[in-house]
Amino acid sequence: MKPYAEMTKEELSEEIASLKKEYAQFQKLGLSLDMSRGKPCKEQLDLSMEMMDVLNSSSDLYCENGDDCRNYGVLTGIQEAKVLIGDMMENNPDNIIIYGNSSLNVMYDTVARAYTHGIMGNTPWCKLDKVKWLCPVPGYDRHFAITQFFGIEMINVPTSPSGPDMDIVEALVSSDEAIKGIWCVPKYSNPTGWSYSDETVRRFARLKPAAKDFRIFWDNAYGVHHLYDDKQDYLIEILAECKRAGNPDMVYKFASTSKITFPGSGIAAMATSPNNLEDILTQLKVQTIGHDKVNQLRHVRFFGDIHGMVEHMRKHADIIRPKFECVEDTLEKELGGLGIGSWTKPLGGYFISFDSYPGCAKDIVDKCKKAGVKMTKAGATYPYGKDPKDSNIRIAPTYPSMEELQKAAKLFTVCVKYSCAEKIYSERFKKEDQ
Amino acid sequence: MKPYAEMTKEELSEEIASLKKEYAQFQKLGLSLDMSRGKPCKEQLDLSMEMMDVLNSSSDLYCENGDDCRNYGVLTGIQEAKVLIGDMMENNPDNIIIYGNSSLNVMYDTVARAYTHGIMGNTPWCKLDKVKWLCPVPGYDRHFAITQFFGIEMINVPTSPSGPDMDIVEALVSSDEAIKGIWCVPKYSNPTGWSYSDETVRRFARLKPAAKDFRIFWDNAYGVHHLYDDKQDYLIEILAECKRAGNPDMVYKFASTSKITFPGSGIAAMATSPNNLEDILTQLKVQTIGHDKVNQLRHVRFFGDIHGMVEHMRKHADIIRPKFECVEDTLEKELGGLGIGSWTKPLGGYFISFDSYPGCAKDIVDKCKKAGVKMTKAGATYPYGKDPKDSNIRIAPTYPSMEELQKAAKLFTVCVKYSCAEKIYSERFKKEDQ
Repeated sequence: MKPYAEMTKEELSEEIASLKKEYAQFQKLGLSLDMSRGKPCKEQLDLSMEMMDVLNSSSDLYCENGDDCRNYGVLTGIQEAKVLIGDMMENNPDNIIIYGNSSLNVMYDTVARAYTHGIMGNTPWCKLDKVKWLCPVPGYDRHFAITQFFGIEMINVPTSPSGPDMDIVEALVSSDEAIKGIWCVPKYSNPTGWSYSDETVRRFARLKPAAKDFRIFWDNAYGVHHLYDDKQDYLIEILAECKRAGNPDMVYKFASTSKITFPGSGIAAMATSPNNLEDILTQLKVQTIGHDKVNQLRHVRFFGDIHGMVEHMRKHADIIRPKFECVEDTLEKELGGLGIGSWTKPLGGYFISFDSYPGCAKDIVDKCKKAGVKMTKAGATYPYGKDPKDSNIRIAPTYPSMEELQKAAKLFTVCVKYSCAEKIYSERFKKEDQ
Repeated sequence: MKPYAEMTKEELSEEIASLKKEYAQFQKLGLSLDMSRGKPCKEQLDLSMEMMDVLNSSSDLYCENGDDCRNYGVLTGIQEAKVLIGDMMENNPDNIIIYGNSSLNVMYDTVARAYTHGIMGNTPWCKLDKVKWLCPVPGYDRHFAITQFFGIEMINVPTSPSGPDMDIVEALVSSDEAIKGIWCVPKYSNPTGWSYSDETVRRFARLKPAAKDFRIFWDNAYGVHHLYDDKQDYLIEILAECKRAGNPDMVYKFASTSKITFPGSGIAAMATSPNNLEDILTQLKVQTIGHDKVNQLRHVRFFGDIHGMVEHMRKHADIIRPKFECVEDTLEKELGGLGIGSWTKPLGGYFISFDSYPGCAKDIVDKCKKAGVKMTKAGATYPYGKDPKDSNIRIAPTYPSMEELQKAAKLFTVCVKYSCAEKIYSERFKKEDQ
């Protein structure tokens, strides 16, 4: 089939009529599918069920150093968990704090602490007239929700397959003292799946921020979440690179095992410089009696070491790789050559990013919903939910079964075609019709 | 022996000389004991080891409503955990949010949220010139640390066995709009072990705060932590009483299973009014992906219901009751009639509160430390660590073994006698000596 933009009025009319019928048939199926959130599927969760056996009533619940994991104390996490998560994050265990079950909560707390108490002696953000933030787009809605909640002005930064546009990042960060942070998902980014190039990471580490309390919020959520054995993205480690560049305190790095073991019951962590750690500890010791050490121990005993985790991730990949390929194949088969959409083909992470013909994303998501398939809200990948082109849609293929996914992906392409055909028709021929 | 204050100079000199020797002998023992924190002992932790068996790799990890506890979602906690904790807190499950492992963290967050965003539409506290707080004394050092961390001015309120002095509380709360909260441990209070009388609770519920965003921080940490079967304190339930009094939104109530199962790996909760819950949820949904539902399920499966928890608490009591009695007996035997100290005899909770002859607490704690027994820092039971009488010492008898405790308690009484005798001697006879 030829590109919609090159069709005659009659051809496009026929295509729309045909798509209308196809869409109506889908509506009759009474589907109830969800491709909206990056949730592991049941089979993935089952991979970690043996984690429920590694601690039992006969177990020794003491750490290697003799601390009783059941009792109070050990504020920053047990050493063996720091070693495991250090290997996962590619950081020294001494640079790590192990938290509770949600890295999002750690990020929220980090913004909140800067807001109430300031970073390393700088003015608390609540005392400033204006705080701004850089948001590479498309990005992660829950990041944007945090900065929005604190009334922080978010500035879009375009991204490409090599990462955020560093010319823009450098220019803004070095000139505006009100810019205090940037959200980064550097590897298998949410939603594009792109990973930052070596040059991008190097330029991040060499930023010259106008604000002393500017921090890079480096959410390495998908650090070990590869889809393939033979094709994997590698990232320059940002803490080390910042240290080499003379900017040791510029990064807070986040990660968790949410998409490795159980999303609700994993362990989250931050890696950062000794100065930042000291700053954080003045609050942490007031904030909590410590995090769940038994669960930390459970994770350590389950994985053994980083190799155990890598082997475990391979099993995840075996489950979800076919799902990514199913969506990609369907997109290619149904939309290839039509000139109404482009999409990413990530080597890891949880999402495929789809860009439709401009002005159609909301309508596509709406059409999907009305046929029983829930997609991430259009606009969600942009601050304030506002996609200026109304074009980007995040596809989350992991949760549905293969059978469901095939239906959902096919329906999605029907909605894309239907919506874009109508849009193009309206742009090209509506005046004639009037 | 007669009261120190009635001794002659010679009698007191002899007593001091004798105590000096006794103290020196203790120093030679090379003790290393800890009565400083309210930590369960190993035998208490062992009571919950079977909780490690209730979930295993063959378990069904779904809630009663079909939600998978392993995955994301269920922001406010699983229903069956709300029912269990509701029974524990004496509140409707619908009024409850289940959090992570630390109720202290929930209290911190609650203050932090009021500071950054305000309570139910009121001005965020960070935008106010002054925020004040009432602190019944002696009280819990980690409460005071939170309000101090946020620069909130803390005002001491004296307490008696029936609770805080409500004349003072009412007068201050109704006249000063800057007063936004009060820390309360209403049952088996930290450190006195006293429980609020019915009249005290009723007067709390009928407060007429000048500030619309005044909240009672009701930390019912020891709600089910009785030492005796036949002698137990009962408390009027504060949420219900506030509702009856027309003040439904005035209370945040906190609790946890930290001293029921594992201090590091329990579950914490808040109970409050629907209006407050709605207010909290606007933040909670931004702050976290939810708390550890697997651990919630583990607690529910372990206890079954509130009766199971009550039976479990009886076992705790059997372990720690003799420890409380050991300390109380030693205090009575060694200090009775000397007029240099008084102490509480709680029916539950984790502490005995000791008041020495004024001006001696720091010295007593210091003397204990130098003989190898760590006590809670003198002054810790007052805001800013400042006990105006330098008199109160919190004794935490649960953690040491009985054998250790006997030694530690004995040493403590030697230090009390030694320090108070010196102090009284200095006050009465020092001028003569000069």
